[in-house]
Amino acid sequence: MDFEHSERSKAVTAQVRRFVEQRVVPNHQTYRDQLVGGADWTRWKVPPIIEELKQEAKDLGLWNLFLPDEKYGCGLDNRDYAPIAEVTGQSFIAPEVFNCSAPDTGNAEVLVQYGSEEQKQQWLEPLLAGEIRSGFAMTEPAVASSDATNMRATCEVVGDEVVLNGQKWWTSGAGDPRCAFYIFMGVTDAQADRHQRHSMVLVPADAPGLEVLRMLPVLGHYDDPHGHGELLFDNVRLPKRAIIAGAGRGFEIAQGRLGPGRIHHCMRAIGAAERALRRLCERAVHRIAFGKPLANLGGNRDIIANSRMAIDQARLLTLKAAWALDTMGTFGALTDISAIKVIAPNVLQSVTDAAMQIHGGEGMSDPELNWLLVMGRALRLADGPDEVHRGMVARLELKKYR
Amino acid sequence: MDFEHSERSKAVTAQVRRFVEQRVVPNHQTYRDQLVGGADWTRWKVPPIIEELKQEAKDLGLWNLFLPDEKYGCGLDNRDYAPIAEVTGQSFIAPEVFNCSAPDTGNAEVLVQYGSEEQKQQWLEPLLAGEIRSGFAMTEPAVASSDATNMRATCEVVGDEVVLNGQKWWTSGAGDPRCAFYIFMGVTDAQADRHQRHSMVLVPADAPGLEVLRMLPVLGHYDDPHGHGELLFDNVRLPKRAIIAGAGRGFEIAQGRLGPGRIHHCMRAIGAAERALRRLCERAVHRIAFGKPLANLGGNRDIIANSRMAIDQARLLTLKAAWALDTMGTFGALTDISAIKVIAPNVLQSVTDAAMQIHGGEGMSDPELNWLLVMGRALRLADGPDEVHRGMVARLELKKYR
Amino acid sequence: MDFEHSERSKAVTAQVRRFVEQRVVPNHQTYRDQLVGGADWTRWKVPPIIEELKQEAKDLGLWNLFLPDEKYGCGLDNRDYAPIAEVTGQSFIAPEVFNCSAPDTGNAEVLVQYGSEEQKQQWLEPLLAGEIRSGFAMTEPAVASSDATNMRATCEVVGDEVVLNGQKWWTSGAGDPRCAFYIFMGVTDAQADRHQRHSMVLVPADAPGLEVLRMLPVLGHYDDPHGHGELLFDNVRLPKRAIIAGAGRGFEIAQGRLGPGRIHHCMRAIGAAERALRRLCERAVHRIAFGKPLANLGGNRDIIANSRMAIDQARLLTLKAAWALDTMGTFGALTDISAIKVIAPNVLQSVTDAAMQIHGGEGMSDPELNWLLVMGRALRLADGPDEVHRGMVARLELKKYR
Amino acid sequence: MDFEHSERSKAVTAQVRRFVEQRVVPNHQTYRDQLVGGADWTRWKVPPIIEELKQEAKDLGLWNLFLPDEKYGCGLDNRDYAPIAEVTGQSFIAPEVFNCSAPDTGNAEVLVQYGSEEQKQQWLEPLLAGEIRSGFAMTEPAVASSDATNMRATCEVVGDEVVLNGQKWWTSGAGDPRCAFYIFMGVTDAQADRHQRHSMVLVPADAPGLEVLRMLPVLGHYDDPHGHGELLFDNVRLPKRAIIAGAGRGFEIAQGRLGPGRIHHCMRAIGAAERALRRLCERAVHRIAFGKPLANLGGNRDIIANSRMAIDQARLLTLKAAWALDTMGTFGALTDISAIKVIAPNVLQSVTDAAMQIHGGEGMSDPELNWLLVMGRALRLADGPDEVHRGMVARLELKKYR
Repeated sequence: MDFEHSERSKAVTAQVRRFVEQRVVPNHQTYRDQLVGGADWTRWKVPPIIEELKQEAKDLGLWNLFLPDEKYGCGLDNRDYAPIAEVTGQSFIAPEVFNCSAPDTGNAEVLVQYGSEEQKQQWLEPLLAGEIRSGFAMTEPAVASSDATNMRATCEVVGDEVVLNGQKWWTSGAGDPRCAFYIFMGVTDAQADRHQRHSMVLVPADAPGLEVLRMLPVLGHYDDPHGHGELLFDNVRLPKRAIIAGAGRGFEIAQGRLGPGRIHHCMRAIGAAERALRRLCERAVHRIAFGKPLANLGGNRDIIANSRMAIDQARLLTLKAAWALDTMGTFGALTDISAIKVIAPNVLQSVTDAAMQIHGGEGMSDPELNWLLVMGRALRLADGPDEVHRGMVARLELKKYR
Repeated sequence: MDFEHSERSKAVTAQVRRFVEQRVVPNHQTYRDQLVGGADWTRWKVPPIIEELKQEAKDLGLWNLFLPDEKYGCGLDNRDYAPIAEVTGQSFIAPEVFNCSAPDTGNAEVLVQYGSEEQKQQWLEPLLAGEIRSGFAMTEPAVASSDATNMRATCEVVGDEVVLNGQKWWTSGAGDPRCAFYIFMGVTDAQADRHQRHSMVLVPADAPGLEVLRMLPVLGHYDDPHGHGELLFDNVRLPKRAIIAGAGRGFEIAQGRLGPGRIHHCMRAIGAAERALRRLCERAVHRIAFGKPLANLGGNRDIIANSRMAIDQARLLTLKAAWALDTMGTFGALTDISAIKVIAPNVLQSVTDAAMQIHGGEGMSDPELNWLLVMGRALRLADGPDEVHRGMVARLELKKYR
Repeated sequence: MDFEHSERSKAVTAQVRRFVEQRVVPNHQTYRDQLVGGADWTRWKVPPIIEELKQEAKDLGLWNLFLPDEKYGCGLDNRDYAPIAEVTGQSFIAPEVFNCSAPDTGNAEVLVQYGSEEQKQQWLEPLLAGEIRSGFAMTEPAVASSDATNMRATCEVVGDEVVLNGQKWWTSGAGDPRCAFYIFMGVTDAQADRHQRHSMVLVPADAPGLEVLRMLPVLGHYDDPHGHGELLFDNVRLPKRAIIAGAGRGFEIAQGRLGPGRIHHCMRAIGAAERALRRLCERAVHRIAFGKPLANLGGNRDIIANSRMAIDQARLLTLKAAWALDTMGTFGALTDISAIKVIAPNVLQSVTDAAMQIHGGEGMSDPELNWLLVMGRALRLADGPDEVHRGMVARLELKKYR
Repeated sequence: MDFEHSERSKAVTAQVRRFVEQRVVPNHQTYRDQLVGGADWTRWKVPPIIEELKQEAKDLGLWNLFLPDEKYGCGLDNRDYAPIAEVTGQSFIAPEVFNCSAPDTGNAEVLVQYGSEEQKQQWLEPLLAGEIRSGFAMTEPAVASSDATNMRATCEVVGDEVVLNGQKWWTSGAGDPRCAFYIFMGVTDAQADRHQRHSMVLVPADAPGLEVLRMLPVLGHYDDPHGHGELLFDNVRLPKRAIIAGAGRGFEIAQGRLGPGRIHHCMRAIGAAERALRRLCERAVHRIAFGKPLANLGGNRDIIANSRMAIDQARLLTLKAAWALDTMGTFGALTDISAIKVIAPNVLQSVTDAAMQIHGGEGMSDPELNWLLVMGRALRLADGPDEVHRGMVARLELKKYR
């Protein structure tokens, strides 16, 4: 196990860190000031500052860093991308600044790997250029989406067309005015083998029959101006060539997408947890009560030590998962990927809860601590619930004894 | 230890339960529909349905149940009020329906115990009639308010007047259009003995010099149309008779207010946790994944059992605290009160977190689960941080060995 | 719920406490000095001091306090016995001093309830007189005994005789030189209904064919001179009248025995946990490191507060279980009994672990802390594993929603 | 961070693993059978099988693997030794078989680094040859030894002699018939600077004035035939040249000894935890209750998954500590060393507790599970209490913010 990052990775990480510190963080407030957000998503407007920062990052070559593909991306493998993603995880807008934010990253990977030339030209290129954004429509209301056999949405092939029907939710990015297309997953052939029933289809955001019903709040937060949408597909008809890689390959593509694309969240969660610990420690050192800094009261040092130990262990396991992915592929990394998807969000949630607690009432309304808490809590479900990942770790462990 | 509730308590609890089930819960959606809330608190409007429900409850005599005082209240002691408060804790509007919601309850207790006849007539009577609401202005920004010696706001006695200066926050109810007065706490004589420095003053909401600066969100929630306000007192001048019980008695009054008035939160938290567990179990029974109800998957039954055990223990300790308060007064109940203030909110937070988790994405935006989570999380600070209460429990325990 | 103990219970508790403090604890060392114990159980000798103390307690009427039966016992119900058992739980020999130690207590209850007059005369009377001791042979090696259908031992009725075959283990008391009889459970009719297959039989300790194979250590401790035995029943032939209450009633008797007889362990565990907390606090107050008592270092106060809160809650739930048993019988108390069987041992184990930790190296070899740890750890299995009890709590909870 | 083990390390690990599996584990029972152990340490005899196995291992060159020194040891650094130590941690006698067991390892490191040529010849050489064993006499009864300023034992320089007085305990190995010498630490000059007060002295086990008072049990286990001794030094007079590296350097040497020598315990604890998890899983797969393997009941899979995740994270952090030690020295590795000393024993303790629980009654007396539990529990104190290590992690973390 070699977790050493390449020279190039170290250099890029340093550049990204500098850019985040000097350009991104100082513009957090500008972003908030410019944002037209709130409960009515139809009024949302993207803050112009984000496009300025994107252009700057692009000009510096700090762009599409997540994409290992040499042609479309920048050729860094998972191990090399990990420290970069960690740095971007410390700011709520940094991932987008470097064109490295979900769900575009996963969608781009799908298109790079499975897209036709025409599909790449139409959707991948503007996406990687940062001109448009996208959504991923898989999860459905009213059924347990962690079990793919529950999927109800359909994409029937009728002659030269494919016809989409069904309801989806938690389609992140659906509220973003720049969202130009979705990748939709549905059942094409309910009689086929379990793993060959589904297809994935590229759907323009303005396709007739597609309606965005509402944005779903996460603990009261809309993640404006991106949002998490509930979408109705009512007889959306598209030419057959909108199907990615051919009908029946949806499950296969989804599995691939669950690999590398998904540990990005963990990498960022580590950075976010570091941010929470920083806030915790700063408060512990500077806040005085009963004549002492909080760091010297009660069990606060134990909390700090436990947080440091948890984050360091989570980072190492994330690196191991990245290394395993790079050297052995998804199947060699299954335990590590599942494990880190449980651990990283839970560490983030608990360190953030502690950071909030030490901030007292102030912590309850601190925007950054709120963002961190929502991220940690939501990630315990967004990439599959803890329970499913724990089940996978146990299954692989028990296999050794059968 | 006799935790048996009186016949009257049992009867009232049954009535309250029926009213909550038949009148309050069915109107939750009406309340939400009528509410004019959101980030701009100056536009908030109280849903008319709440006043209708209040009138109905009042007509049934289900009114001011929290107040043990025979004259002003309904004569139930803490032990008898506990199961009633628990029932009201299962609905986000029920406490107000029965005129039993914070901070009015604590303010009423202060006025009953320490108010002059004039003060009672002016503020207590309309408050108990449900015609006005009120706020409590004690916590301050920028200092650790868990340590009372940190208080910076002042209320100087100048001739016949008392002059208030300072900034307060987390003044709950400050955004409510019906909020008519505040109880303000400030330093009158910084040279006096630690426990005789402070005074409490009744301040009309429209007093010149008093400005409501903003409402503070709790994890993004404004608790509209009540809100948690940040207030500026800039040379607010009032006649000296606005002081409660005379200058220098603020600390004494605050201590009293921290007793009974404060375990109401715990009683309601138990009810709220029961509500969370009900949601958890209903989901576990009715949701199917991988061919089974969630109740039969993984460790879900352990979570359910642990939740049941935690709630039952928390309820018993709350009853013990109530019983101790009733039979031995605040000083005989100190350990139990401190203990239950740690335990009840933590149980609520963890059961709710589990209920959210089992609801998957849906749990993230479920309004009731969000309300429960915010309540649990906020209560770990609102009545004093966990850390301070644990410190008190430990101090009293160690005292036995010195 | 009325947890108030009767005047008689209070008086007896006070007497027992005095006797434990003045006579039992001061003789702990004498007991240890007189004991012939160790790995070779065949050499074990009971310390004479225990018989002296038993006689003293008996003379004072502090005898068979556990037994609610008016005729054979002393007529205290579970609620009234709880504080007494708690006091005895603070000494490793006190339960025996008052003739209140397992498994004699459970066996006596079985005989009182189901025994024939002859059986009572032969076994119950000397047992209650403290002249003999006894064992309970139910658990078997090599199968999961938490599932009664796994039982392999047999007791066939052949003519006028009953013939016992099989292997048992964890038969507590089997190494005690005074152990005069066992209650054996085995399958009489494998074809009968699940709950009518088993019988219970009274077996003299010197019955031909019965061999005690070895004593099982618990974390290296033999609980000498009582021991936990592994027993071989090889064609043990007894007259049919040795069967308790008739063939086929074994399961019914076992269920009854799992009720009251079994929450005694929980009551004692609460007392034991109090003892551990006392040791923890004394050390915290008197031990100095880095210039301060340990109580003022790190998170020790949090540990103390958490221990106090856990014990107080566990005690209340034990009282609730006792009250429920007394007023509603086993079926009305199922959730509470199962819950407290999980909670009490776990609280004992964790408070003891903390007490050990604060004692440093000394804690590792402190006999009392060792005894407490072994008790806590073993009880998590001895009365059925945590997992089975949690399963029962969850099952009863979920039943409400079906 | 490069955690990759060298080719040589991989080869040696494979050899050690084979030897443990084929020669050591199959002789566990022989060792137990040959052992003369028990409470009376003066009768202890070392099982001859251990010397046979040592000779075999030595012949294969699997010897002194812990010692990085090229001349005396085998030149493997910490990173390379980690997987080897992990393998040996899976057997209770393997560390000794390869001459890699504490406290000899730490003592050898001290002599290699600080010993005179004469000292090396007299003590180091037979120690590394496996002909003798040794003890380390630092911890004292009645004071908090985690605070070195508490040390009371003295070693006064009087003319050409050094005179030792004081009482020590937890001197591991003191009961071993082969124990030939101790390294003793005492105060030479109480007036000197805090870090220059102490000296370390080599004391022959048969020095007049040195008396072994007793062996201390750990949770009832004596770790026979090695034992943890309490020693009395009563005017033990030795030539001055018995002092290691000169008077006043004791603290310096102790600090050095706390570095590499001490993460060996963590490496072995990881292996021990793997052993516990193996036992847990084997039981989960093969034991049937209620018609299913335990693996399919309740929350057992969550326990397995959590154990796997905890062990994997702990291993990575141990490797990081080893790597940091190798590349940056003790000061660059302080956080990691402190962290892993908290984490590794706690993981071992909790996985073992779970393994015991799933074994039911059998787990309580299983010798291997008992050994694992004692190791985990004792290590939470033996290398300094958790609390001290957590304090160090917090101190280093907070330093960043001052």
